[in-house]
Amino acid sequence: CQCSFRCTGSSLIGMKCKNDRNKVVHSIKVGIALVLVSFLYLLDPLYEQVGDNTIWAIMTVVVVFEFFAGAMLSKGLNRGIGTILGCALGCLAAILADKVDGTGNAIVVGISVFIFGAAATYCRLVPSIRRRYDYGAMIFILTFNLIVVSGVRANEFVKLARHRLSTIGMGFSVCIFTSLLIFPMWASDELHYSTAAKFEKLACCIEECLEQYFETVASPDFNQPEKKKESDYKWQANYARWEPWHGKFGFSYPWEKYLEIGEVLRELAATIFSLKACLQSPKQPTSTLRQSIKEPCELAGLLIAWTLRELEESIFTMKRCRAEALIVPKLQPLKLELSRVPSPFKLGATENGEG
Amino acid sequence: CQCSFRCTGSSLIGMKCKNDRNKVVHSIKVGIALVLVSFLYLLDPLYEQVGDNTIWAIMTVVVVFEFFAGAMLSKGLNRGIGTILGCALGCLAAILADKVDGTGNAIVVGISVFIFGAAATYCRLVPSIRRRYDYGAMIFILTFNLIVVSGVRANEFVKLARHRLSTIGMGFSVCIFTSLLIFPMWASDELHYSTAAKFEKLACCIEECLEQYFETVASPDFNQPEKKKESDYKWQANYARWEPWHGKFGFSYPWEKYLEIGEVLRELAATIFSLKACLQSPKQPTSTLRQSIKEPCELAGLLIAWTLRELEESIFTMKRCRAEALIVPKLQPLKLELSRVPSPFKLGATENGEG
Repeated sequence: CQCSFRCTGSSLIGMKCKNDRNKVVHSIKVGIALVLVSFLYLLDPLYEQVGDNTIWAIMTVVVVFEFFAGAMLSKGLNRGIGTILGCALGCLAAILADKVDGTGNAIVVGISVFIFGAAATYCRLVPSIRRRYDYGAMIFILTFNLIVVSGVRANEFVKLARHRLSTIGMGFSVCIFTSLLIFPMWASDELHYSTAAKFEKLACCIEECLEQYFETVASPDFNQPEKKKESDYKWQANYARWEPWHGKFGFSYPWEKYLEIGEVLRELAATIFSLKACLQSPKQPTSTLRQSIKEPCELAGLLIAWTLRELEESIFTMKRCRAEALIVPKLQPLKLELSRVPSPFKLGATENGEG
Repeated sequence: CQCSFRCTGSSLIGMKCKNDRNKVVHSIKVGIALVLVSFLYLLDPLYEQVGDNTIWAIMTVVVVFEFFAGAMLSKGLNRGIGTILGCALGCLAAILADKVDGTGNAIVVGISVFIFGAAATYCRLVPSIRRRYDYGAMIFILTFNLIVVSGVRANEFVKLARHRLSTIGMGFSVCIFTSLLIFPMWASDELHYSTAAKFEKLACCIEECLEQYFETVASPDFNQPEKKKESDYKWQANYARWEPWHGKFGFSYPWEKYLEIGEVLRELAATIFSLKACLQSPKQPTSTLRQSIKEPCELAGLLIAWTLRELEESIFTMKRCRAEALIVPKLQPLKLELSRVPSPFKLGATENGEG
């Protein structure tokens, strides 16, 4: 956020370093997980148990190991559920197809592949399913097809299903072990702290806006507040829901509240943006007029910035905000005072009387 | 967009129907592609050629077949490039490891898995690579690991690499055939027409805003303009780049211009939002004052809406906009006229004089 560079410059640089470090840590974790899962091939006793199906375990690690723990759990559980459903329905369809002889067999298989493939694909396009179970539906299509189609050639589809399930389970265990036990990266932490930091940024923007307006005379160069993308919030809240109890975040923690707060903050940012547009317009009051509204404006701005910081601290430390005792008594007189500031039309009259 | 419901209500319903129809068409296409790729298993002559490796072809179809043709091409080419690179480097590493005997072999394999896995994962986290080659990097890790690790057990890694490449090629061909030849869905079309439609929506928003302000007296209920998400634009432009020459879109079509237009339209939407905030504020001029500014405001609003529609038509039909001849001569006197409208301060003075 260029806007609040002065306020949070050093903390931003700190965040960038932390981000870079987290990227390196994540890369090393993926490397470790890959080596661990390769042991299934490399160590003789393990290979004798699993055999060539290790391929599914490796694939699971590569595909499922995401940056945030919540994303990894969401993808892994989706993969598990999709595989179980696909195996179950695939075995059923394969048994059904097995009862028909000759080309009839192939036709039954073809029809079932078409129907289940098209239906699951349609589900993937429904927004509510897409958001949470897209990957699961994809894995369902894949597993269903593999099982049904292999049933035509060898009657070992039940064995294939069992192997696929167990090796995916092994891969997922390696992921859970590496992702959750070695420097876990929680989407919940990221969402929590970035939401709190947003309050500080907006407070800084308001202060800077005020300062520039009353210091320089004509059309100062405001920077607009950086808006955190709505989709970022949505994904992080989505991942945070999958994450287990950790730190101060219990089960059934109200993650959707963060989305609501994010929405309100976006509206505030848009209002600051519109304030900037008004202040930059070529029609500006004279500096006398500007000075006459300086005091109430600055008071209001500073009080709003202070309120934002109070809210930030309350969210950051997860303590109940002392709104009743601290904030409301200060804001109510401000509201009164602002309603007493004359409207631009009245101000213009004074101005004209003076000039 | 609730805001422009009156203007574009019927076209919105039309769009929704078209969207639903496209979803069904896409599902049927995926079903057809899955049946086509299953023939590799179902038909004896094909199965004799390909064998159990058909699994890679099925997987390619399931994973690569995306809604937009550009997304499918991008994913498929990424998969191809990732597989080729992974096979090449994997074979090299396997040959190297083969020269070391005993446990040394396993150690070389483990180290190469770790280094390549961690390095490729770090690349996936770099934003510029992530945007276009994320999937390719993932497939590289997967293929590299499969080839290297299988080199430990059987010395058939070259055969494995060849099979993997050819079956992925078969799956991709089925995808291209079904996606591009049966009712192709172009991200380019979607981006092009939705950008043009956005102009119309904003024009409607401005008209509605004006109408409501001058019809009702106090704090009318404005709806805010719907903003097309930046990420939607970015993804569609990203996919559009991968799409081959079709319709009116040639090679090296300037897709990044759509991003710039989208950016400008988002700013315009934010300005309309700020206009709404100003008009809804409790401090409003009296209705006499409001009537006195009605004429120039309505003239300006209608002219801006007309200009937006001219631009829309020019983008929609891909014809050079007659800006010099048509739009500029109308906008310049407007600018003059607006600069002659007295500022709120002056207006206030008149008002006070009258009241």
